[in-house]
Amino acid sequence: MTTQTPVVVFAGRPEQREAYERDLRAAAGEAGLGMTLVMDPAEADPAAADYLILAPSGPVTDFTPYTRLKAILNLWAGVEQALALPLPPGVPLVRMVEEGLTLGMLDYVTGHVMRHHLDLDRYVGNTTALPWEANAPPLAAERKVTLLGLGALGGICASRLAGLGFQVHGWSRTARYVEGVTCHHGADGLIAALDGASILVLLLPQTPQTVGIVGASALSRLAPGAAVINAGRGPLIDDDALLAALDRGDLGHATLDVFDVEPLPVEHPFWTHPNVTVTPHIASITRSGTASRALVSQIARGEAGQPFLHVVERDRGY
Amino acid sequence: MTTQTPVVVFAGRPEQREAYERDLRAAAGEAGLGMTLVMDPAEADPAAADYLILAPSGPVTDFTPYTRLKAILNLWAGVEQALALPLPPGVPLVRMVEEGLTLGMLDYVTGHVMRHHLDLDRYVGNTTALPWEANAPPLAAERKVTLLGLGALGGICASRLAGLGFQVHGWSRTARYVEGVTCHHGADGLIAALDGASILVLLLPQTPQTVGIVGASALSRLAPGAAVINAGRGPLIDDDALLAALDRGDLGHATLDVFDVEPLPVEHPFWTHPNVTVTPHIASITRSGTASRALVSQIARGEAGQPFLHVVERDRGY
Repeated sequence: MTTQTPVVVFAGRPEQREAYERDLRAAAGEAGLGMTLVMDPAEADPAAADYLILAPSGPVTDFTPYTRLKAILNLWAGVEQALALPLPPGVPLVRMVEEGLTLGMLDYVTGHVMRHHLDLDRYVGNTTALPWEANAPPLAAERKVTLLGLGALGGICASRLAGLGFQVHGWSRTARYVEGVTCHHGADGLIAALDGASILVLLLPQTPQTVGIVGASALSRLAPGAAVINAGRGPLIDDDALLAALDRGDLGHATLDVFDVEPLPVEHPFWTHPNVTVTPHIASITRSGTASRALVSQIARGEAGQPFLHVVERDRGY
Repeated sequence: MTTQTPVVVFAGRPEQREAYERDLRAAAGEAGLGMTLVMDPAEADPAAADYLILAPSGPVTDFTPYTRLKAILNLWAGVEQALALPLPPGVPLVRMVEEGLTLGMLDYVTGHVMRHHLDLDRYVGNTTALPWEANAPPLAAERKVTLLGLGALGGICASRLAGLGFQVHGWSRTARYVEGVTCHHGADGLIAALDGASILVLLLPQTPQTVGIVGASALSRLAPGAAVINAGRGPLIDDDALLAALDRGDLGHATLDVFDVEPLPVEHPFWTHPNVTVTPHIASITRSGTASRALVSQIARGEAGQPFLHVVERDRGY
């Protein structure tokens, strides 16, 4: 009996090829998976490709020659850029869910929630003598932290924050259960989730329903001086409403990792606003080592006739 | 049968009396403990006092009239100031261990460890456009964090940080076990604990053996650019060695909550040093609500003939 090894074409950015070639081969070896790996799509026979590993900013933009794909494996956790491409219908598009990305997001969310909780900005970078006042910040148990989005990343971040002792509320489009977290869903649930929250963390996907979800109305529900942390997608926030709430002093701070346009243009007011912290889309970065293990695991599932995990529902947009 | 209710004298600072009178009475009511509470030592009959609640900076400095004390209940977690007072020999001195203090310390240590882990200072307060580089910080699992001190606070902080995924090492004078933490002890253990740590957290008590424990030799063991967080006692650190290591660039940052002299004098170089963050002894603050429950619990144990918890070993100094 001969078994055809699957043909895997890597359509990531050229500068990613070296790390991914090394790590994909290592992961396939660990998993005992044979595969024919083509790192440069220009050297591939598209009609022979079984799997396409896709960076939406990568070299493949015409998918019509890829006639027998078993799956498209997205290198990014977010899929809106992939969905904007003319992908072949009927081929499963698989989201990247890998440990390094999740762990990096956990670190980012934990760090910035703790930073706002403890008002660390009062001390970081300070070079003058401060009043010696024993003003204890509230304990975590006295702080309502709300996450919008309880998916693969949001759910685990909510659990983490609950474990740190916060009063954690979460909101998702449809009902979810996360232990230790007060879960809300739907339009009414959104209001309950936002009401009185002093730290709001955004981990929603970008869909027609979530664009602008954090506007003047949502912001007005938060506790006075609240902080917003956006680690989801830029368009979740109505930037003008955010700036207005900051300038009125209703909102205390915004820490933003994602933006409508990236890189954030150098002239954008977010860069210079004293109550906005910009991070350059680093909350969660796909790391080639852990990502390669996730990719190989999906290919092995496909070859074994098992369903792929984390398949995107294209009509819902995530 | 008549039962004498114990006489409890509050020797905290006068500005603490209102909150503690309210919270001690509430805690005694909850616990069903009868007691005669005297909030101003000037109005007390010292010879009738069973328990003295002591702030070392409070109004009682002469203890000779307190002839029948069953225990001295320290309001502070640290006991070196209490031990410097002429306390009556043979009377148990009990350390304050209360939930609010522990939870506040957990928050502080978590927040500042995450801050250094993620290099948040690079972004906090920045108001110019940064390069748009996806330089992911290492994951927590790639970071060695060492705690010196595995007592009531150190042990729980070490567990917390291990739960966040860090490679946590801990050191204590005598052997301890903390799940998920690589525990070291003794002189040789100290070197192993420090070697290559990129974040060092100090939660040791101040004793003759721990004064100056973090000097040039200890600092030289840390990873290049490491951060030191002192939430224990000021004299643990040799300040001159710390400043020299910062100025050489061997040490990246020091975040200090405790000092040899407090309040930290306004002319002290720590205030203005760009790589030193000063917080005004706020890492862990005894909160009257939770502290009162702890005090009442100790008095109830004493009245029931049970041993007190957290009794200071005076000859060891903690």
